[in-house]
Amino acid sequence: MKKIALLGSTGSIGQSTLSICESHPDRFHPIALAAGSNLEVAFAQCQRWRPQVVSIATEALADELSARLKDAGINGIEVVYGTAGTVRVATLPEADFVVSAIVGVAGLEATYAAVLAGKTVGLANKECLVAAGDLILAAAREHSVDLLPIDSEHNAIHQCLRGGAASEVKQIWLTASGGPFRNTPLADFGHITPAQALKHPTWVMGQRITIDSATMLNKGLEIIEACRLFNLPPAQVRVTVHPQSTIHSLVEYVDGSILAQISVTDMRLPILYALAWPERVPSDLTFDMAALSHLDFQQPDFERFPCLRLAYEAAAASQNHCIALNAADEIAVEAFLAGKLPFLGIPRTIEQVLALTTSGSPASIPEVLAADRAARELARELVAR
Amino acid sequence: MKKIALLGSTGSIGQSTLSICESHPDRFHPIALAAGSNLEVAFAQCQRWRPQVVSIATEALADELSARLKDAGINGIEVVYGTAGTVRVATLPEADFVVSAIVGVAGLEATYAAVLAGKTVGLANKECLVAAGDLILAAAREHSVDLLPIDSEHNAIHQCLRGGAASEVKQIWLTASGGPFRNTPLADFGHITPAQALKHPTWVMGQRITIDSATMLNKGLEIIEACRLFNLPPAQVRVTVHPQSTIHSLVEYVDGSILAQISVTDMRLPILYALAWPERVPSDLTFDMAALSHLDFQQPDFERFPCLRLAYEAAAASQNHCIALNAADEIAVEAFLAGKLPFLGIPRTIEQVLALTTSGSPASIPEVLAADRAARELARELVAR
Repeated sequence: MKKIALLGSTGSIGQSTLSICESHPDRFHPIALAAGSNLEVAFAQCQRWRPQVVSIATEALADELSARLKDAGINGIEVVYGTAGTVRVATLPEADFVVSAIVGVAGLEATYAAVLAGKTVGLANKECLVAAGDLILAAAREHSVDLLPIDSEHNAIHQCLRGGAASEVKQIWLTASGGPFRNTPLADFGHITPAQALKHPTWVMGQRITIDSATMLNKGLEIIEACRLFNLPPAQVRVTVHPQSTIHSLVEYVDGSILAQISVTDMRLPILYALAWPERVPSDLTFDMAALSHLDFQQPDFERFPCLRLAYEAAAASQNHCIALNAADEIAVEAFLAGKLPFLGIPRTIEQVLALTTSGSPASIPEVLAADRAARELARELVAR
Repeated sequence: MKKIALLGSTGSIGQSTLSICESHPDRFHPIALAAGSNLEVAFAQCQRWRPQVVSIATEALADELSARLKDAGINGIEVVYGTAGTVRVATLPEADFVVSAIVGVAGLEATYAAVLAGKTVGLANKECLVAAGDLILAAAREHSVDLLPIDSEHNAIHQCLRGGAASEVKQIWLTASGGPFRNTPLADFGHITPAQALKHPTWVMGQRITIDSATMLNKGLEIIEACRLFNLPPAQVRVTVHPQSTIHSLVEYVDGSILAQISVTDMRLPILYALAWPERVPSDLTFDMAALSHLDFQQPDFERFPCLRLAYEAAAASQNHCIALNAADEIAVEAFLAGKLPFLGIPRTIEQVLALTTSGSPASIPEVLAADRAARELARELVAR
């Protein structure tokens, strides 16, 4: 039985993780939950799972949750809150495996603490590798911690890497859906509206990630993640546009063989893979090979999707540049959604912020957070001009 | 440096194996060659590689080859012939790796001897697994011998199986080009001529294998091979029609993940993989991911391709039935090519021979050969009626 500490239990990945625990009660049990601000869901999760520890966003919510638990006659759950609370969940001595699924930089401190505590970590939070990859990978090496990617592309790469030694990898190929503007002519990119950009062809996701998919900045962040996680230079991390998202990614070996991973587009699969690793555990998440009819591929267009180029540049430049890329994008996407920035203003803002970023690598999570705040501030100023 | 004994050096796989040795002189060196009847090529190979031993089909050819070598001032090559000669090549103490690429049942005795001698064997001869799978697999287990498949489908499966434990495999999927009659209506199958059947859309191969591809009996033999090599029941060996032959085969795991192998359609790749295993060695056999545009898949039609059904039935029945399937097919294909049997007479003949076959498993290679001869005799009688 693996005992799971779940950072981000009330979010989409968190709920999927609990559904995996539900369907594999003999294998995975959540013993610590870090929720966001959703008191109702956090309370229901405590009722269902009776964790040792639950963390919630604020002291006020923690008080309310404690009261609700007491009223319901549920005793013995330690209720904590804030960053200290998530760190408590991430480092609980009894936990074997930490799922890092808090969205944004809020998840950094706790995930880093989990690595320092020697936990096996399932990574669904992309900032861990994009903004703090240097720190987290160094800590993982020092503490012999396995980092298992919980997102379809990197999880696919992890699986395909089992086909050979790290030194035998020629390059890896991340597949990209290409987003809603895959076939839109360059001339039309100036007129793209938020409503158009929010229509994603394959996945239903949050607003920022949907816009990131439309600009392909999302794939850019994945390039950076892959460089860190798999210790590859940017030139060995390639992108192929594959609208069906059936092949989740591929690894090309030096002998000319390529291994590809195929599965249903359901986040429970990479979660299950990470939780079960190094074993594979039966599931009903079956891909119907008999229904497969065709798969399409095309090359990414760096002219129409400058965010891809910017991500390669940031990956090659420094950790500070990766922080700036992610922070500037978040501000620019907010401005785009608020009607304050055109679609092409997103890459333009990022490019301006990157140009003003100094090379370097923060030495601690607080330094990462400071660099992130500074880049956001700069992006806000540039957007406001 | 791996020292290679090559059974079938003058054939297509043999020559490709030597071209791999040529391009990787620091890694692979052929020290023993078993040629067929092609004296010119055998002589040239001796000139180039100076093997310790060369075997050729007959005593007369061996005398001629010895004389030619002497005239050319090439000394110290042991010239042998016939079955004893191939066995000498297959069991040469100095050899690390035996490539089994003699076509047909002629390769059985030597391949079995290689396994008994504890050599790592690269299998390109399909009769080894179809007709003598029980014997060869039992000997391989007893002598802890690794059998590495040298054909694109099983080699792909071997690669994809690295992604998990054997017990974690749900089923495997062999890809099939579907042959030239993939989209031919059932009503037209009665009129198919040898000339039509000899046009294969993807691979250029010998006549029998091209006809086997048109009837899909070829894929049927691969189903049997896969059952033996990977220790799977027939129900766990599936077929998907994939005209581009870009994905060479797939493994589906119990968790819902599928791994697929992609590469150029060049036999040197599975040969290199087998020779280098468990390492991967750089090659220039590069698949151009950037040029990939689309892949098609459809389901095999057991009504139009009864040979597929017959192969599943033979695999489930017994070793004797697998021998009969292969032997009857060879006779039926000869008769079809000679204009003595219609296209649909091929599966009909096989079905009749299978119906008259008694379940069982030969206890030795001579018994396998006897069962093979008996099935051929029966098929000839049925064809002649």
